[in-house]
Amino acid sequence: MTAIAPHALPGPVLVIGCGLIGTSVGLALRAHDVEVLLLDALPANVEVAESRGAGRAFVDDVVPHLVLVAVPPVAAAAVVTEALARWSDAFVTDVTSVKAGLQRAVAAAQGSDRYVGGHPMAGSERSGPMAASAQLFEGRPWAVTPSPESRPAALDVVVDLALHLGAVPIIMEAAAHDRAVALVSHVPQVMSTLTAARLNDAEGNSLALAGPGLRDTTRIAASDSALWLDILGTNAQDVRSVLELVRDDLDRVIKSLGEDDEALGTVLESGRRGTDLIPGKHGSQPDRLDSVHVQVADRPGELSRLMSDTGASGVNIEDLRLDHDLGRPVGLAEIAVARGVGDDLVAALTARGWTAYR
Amino acid sequence: MTAIAPHALPGPVLVIGCGLIGTSVGLALRAHDVEVLLLDALPANVEVAESRGAGRAFVDDVVPHLVLVAVPPVAAAAVVTEALARWSDAFVTDVTSVKAGLQRAVAAAQGSDRYVGGHPMAGSERSGPMAASAQLFEGRPWAVTPSPESRPAALDVVVDLALHLGAVPIIMEAAAHDRAVALVSHVPQVMSTLTAARLNDAEGNSLALAGPGLRDTTRIAASDSALWLDILGTNAQDVRSVLELVRDDLDRVIKSLGEDDEALGTVLESGRRGTDLIPGKHGSQPDRLDSVHVQVADRPGELSRLMSDTGASGVNIEDLRLDHDLGRPVGLAEIAVARGVGDDLVAALTARGWTAYR
Repeated sequence: MTAIAPHALPGPVLVIGCGLIGTSVGLALRAHDVEVLLLDALPANVEVAESRGAGRAFVDDVVPHLVLVAVPPVAAAAVVTEALARWSDAFVTDVTSVKAGLQRAVAAAQGSDRYVGGHPMAGSERSGPMAASAQLFEGRPWAVTPSPESRPAALDVVVDLALHLGAVPIIMEAAAHDRAVALVSHVPQVMSTLTAARLNDAEGNSLALAGPGLRDTTRIAASDSALWLDILGTNAQDVRSVLELVRDDLDRVIKSLGEDDEALGTVLESGRRGTDLIPGKHGSQPDRLDSVHVQVADRPGELSRLMSDTGASGVNIEDLRLDHDLGRPVGLAEIAVARGVGDDLVAALTARGWTAYR
Repeated sequence: MTAIAPHALPGPVLVIGCGLIGTSVGLALRAHDVEVLLLDALPANVEVAESRGAGRAFVDDVVPHLVLVAVPPVAAAAVVTEALARWSDAFVTDVTSVKAGLQRAVAAAQGSDRYVGGHPMAGSERSGPMAASAQLFEGRPWAVTPSPESRPAALDVVVDLALHLGAVPIIMEAAAHDRAVALVSHVPQVMSTLTAARLNDAEGNSLALAGPGLRDTTRIAASDSALWLDILGTNAQDVRSVLELVRDDLDRVIKSLGEDDEALGTVLESGRRGTDLIPGKHGSQPDRLDSVHVQVADRPGELSRLMSDTGASGVNIEDLRLDHDLGRPVGLAEIAVARGVGDDLVAALTARGWTAYR
């Protein structure tokens, strides 16, 4: 992806709310020498954030260029509105995870054209300023949700902020954003919770059998319940719509288990296809590999000969798949190799008598 | 923890089914210089496994000491039964993920006292011999499920196999195993699938907002659907029981979203508590069990004698762990029993000549 050179971000940036996100923003901006001021209802949070190098405590006579509101969702509308009123030249953004309701709440306020919402898709099951990190946003999407009333300059400054933090700004409408996070964040959170909740029923040493699959699927269920109560409450309608579809599928699974393999298989396949849609699922694997197809006769030793010929060509096999099409005299092997060397391998194998192609 | 040295594992070990698990077993055993023979309905799989160093292709005149059946679940009973009949001195084990039905199916067969089921809690969303690794089982639980009819020597050899592979053998009843895997593996798989299935509904660039939470919760949904159809089908009843409780919670969430924070908070908290119970997460065992330590001489049959003496004392074994410590003549078994009966077990075992303590 081409990178956009961010403009210099003029400070000072006032961070209101020195939790995980606010303090991480402060740390990352300080690494760019942007002036950062810190404010929090709990003075202890400011102290911790300041001691970690995220900026300095706010003093009254400083006028911020940009205010970043990183308070709990329920408080966000009031704090954004207050910031717009108090600093009449400042741009204001926030980081709460649900955007449409907040945008509506702010729309009536004086100066709402200086407000553009934001939502970094980064977090941790840990919270608070001690868990903060300047790298928290590196490579992560940062949704930016201007309203039709937002000034272009306000949008620019929020995009620049995201770029300064190493994030990838993704501009979308607030309502579309909320439907998207229901799907990629809020519903997965509920599903993780529902999975983990059942572990309370475990007998004896059952949980000694836990493997990485259980740990992965339940990791986010360890997150702060109060925060999630808040997030889910503010996006209740979109989350409910998705969960009702989940319930339909769940009913289908319960009904078809051990009874109707076709129905159960349809749900399993639908899940498998869903994972294919997640960008960057394999790291960057899809782009990192070339595929080479080779015809292989159904005779003992052919596959070994293919692997040995591939090895002799100096190309490293990253993956090898076979089409198990029983009864055909010739099968197809798909060899994945590092990007850029696929053509070399085709040439080398062809020279040794194989039918190979990309 | 002190550990029991695994006895030398006498070969040859015949691996039937050269997929991910079978080939990984072969690779790990070859690293211990155990003779490994490979058999698969697809000769191509044997070729790949052999070329990777997992053993050599089976030839008819070799008599295996141990047969490890690593075929798809639906085929396991037939292959285990056939192996017991064909090699009348061999011990037989398997690696399928559901145990009670298979144990019942094998019980009637000639030589079923030479069979002890097993289930390594290890895998990958990739499959096939190319994905195999000698390290696949390192530190992972390996459930070992003897039946009341199993010969002590058969249990010993399967425990030794698990120890050779670097796994932690956990001896439990087949039915308890199946309830446990419904909870820690099969239901998480379904939940991951249901979460991922919804991604097919995503609009526009919604999925650009995907973060690590989504990736973690949906990773296992990318697994082979056919294999999971098979696994879920063989454990349908236990999986259904858990999923019905999940549905109750899901209904509660759908109903309380944005309406009843107390009800929603109760579910979220229950999930958070559930994650605390996963062993290894905070490094401590749930505290509802008593631990009893017993010195065990490194002689064949000692472990079986310990289990039989424990059984005779009327105490139910919830968990039994052994670890590696090569070269020590005496090892330590840690037996977990229900809270409050640990002292009784120590007394009973001491009376029978064991060195046991809490």
